[in-house]
Amino acid sequence: MKWEDINAHAKQWVKEAGERIRLSFDTTLNIQTKTNANDLVTNIDKEIEQFFIKKIREVYPEHKIMGEEGFGDELRSLDGIVWLIDPIDGTMNFIHQQRNFAISLGVYENGIGKIGLIYDVVHDELYHAIRGKGAYINEKPIAPVKETTVKESIIALNATWVMENHRIDHNLMIPLVKDVRGTRSYGTAALEMVFVATGRVDAYLSMRLSPWDFAAGTVIVEELGGVVTNLRGEKLDFLSKDSLFAANPSLHQSILKDYLKNGKF
Amino acid sequence: MKWEDINAHAKQWVKEAGERIRLSFDTTLNIQTKTNANDLVTNIDKEIEQFFIKKIREVYPEHKIMGEEGFGDELRSLDGIVWLIDPIDGTMNFIHQQRNFAISLGVYENGIGKIGLIYDVVHDELYHAIRGKGAYINEKPIAPVKETTVKESIIALNATWVMENHRIDHNLMIPLVKDVRGTRSYGTAALEMVFVATGRVDAYLSMRLSPWDFAAGTVIVEELGGVVTNLRGEKLDFLSKDSLFAANPSLHQSILKDYLKNGKF
Repeated sequence: MKWEDINAHAKQWVKEAGERIRLSFDTTLNIQTKTNANDLVTNIDKEIEQFFIKKIREVYPEHKIMGEEGFGDELRSLDGIVWLIDPIDGTMNFIHQQRNFAISLGVYENGIGKIGLIYDVVHDELYHAIRGKGAYINEKPIAPVKETTVKESIIALNATWVMENHRIDHNLMIPLVKDVRGTRSYGTAALEMVFVATGRVDAYLSMRLSPWDFAAGTVIVEELGGVVTNLRGEKLDFLSKDSLFAANPSLHQSILKDYLKNGKF
Repeated sequence: MKWEDINAHAKQWVKEAGERIRLSFDTTLNIQTKTNANDLVTNIDKEIEQFFIKKIREVYPEHKIMGEEGFGDELRSLDGIVWLIDPIDGTMNFIHQQRNFAISLGVYENGIGKIGLIYDVVHDELYHAIRGKGAYINEKPIAPVKETTVKESIIALNATWVMENHRIDHNLMIPLVKDVRGTRSYGTAALEMVFVATGRVDAYLSMRLSPWDFAAGTVIVEELGGVVTNLRGEKLDFLSKDSLFAANPSLHQSILKDYLKNGKF
């Protein structure tokens, strides 16, 4: 009952936020950079996060909030109920493409994911799950993930990770990319996790993400039988930045065993 | 008048073909491989190409046809009016994702692109242009491409091309990928060209494509002031396989001059 109630509010707020984002397409964006020149943030990212925080504080004043833009709480633990919010996941796509971005909203209790909502605003597709109650695109149930072999799989990963970089030995990734059927890169962790959940890609790998990037996606992928860990195969803690590896179970196992087992990351 | 007439027929047939593809989602696909295990074709690819050929032969029996699935004519020149057809560009996406694929249809006269239509079936977005008459998404005009610098650009290219491969020296591509704002890969040349046309990405590079992959996209990109060549900066001949490099003019020039000029491809 409690989770149904929280979920109903979350869905309503996500839809309302989506409408605000759609309206923003006709206004001029105020774009700033964060940690580096390619880490972008807009006034809309900030406004949408503040919108969620206001709504949550009104209805659930005892809940805690971790948001990408930093308007939430400073958390040292995930005790109690915590909302993990990325108001616009894929900000670069939002700015350049006005598509291929999403609102990502996860609700956790004592570190366990209970609710995940990812809203593809432009296509009006809301992916959502309550742990143990199935996962849906809008009102349509999503089928459990299918197991695949490496050679018949499409994996999402960025070209950066097969070039020399300071996060991962690219010589571990190159054989994987050579062996799979194809690779894609969409520039939005939330939607790339949804693509794993729906079988549009069979795995998604990324070297460095924050809890709000994968909190909602983890609930949805796991609800459909998929596996979400870091690249070492360990559970995520949802309090720290980490690498990310989401896939169907057999593919997850194969990639860990045959490609990543000797990696240091 | 002639081109308006051909365009009106082409639009009608593309929409009808799109409807057939949407209906096919509920039927079982018959999937075969072509030149290699990852080069896929379905019964729908074949049926849609045959549908276009039947329509064209009925109304324009004097026109020639080059189609991906081989049901058209065997052409040794582009004299006269030639239709270049990819019934489903992005077949792997069509099979795995039921999205991120398109119908691509170009009409050329004596080797000059006159009409380009690219239909994103799932999102019901028809990108189209008649040379000299503007380019549109459905009925909405598309603005001319904006010029960008390398460091503020998003480019579409597959991870394969920054790994050792037999088409291009990956050491030419790696500095480019390091310098741009970001990379994406969607697995459909037709839509990736449309993304260049609409500024969603600023450039698209691919090492090996066929005329039906880029015929329609070239008309649309060029109509909006973009530049389409192979990776050597030469015009495409639309009769042979070639590499592809589509971008806004200043970015096209910068990438050719600063990254590709010493390449052999």
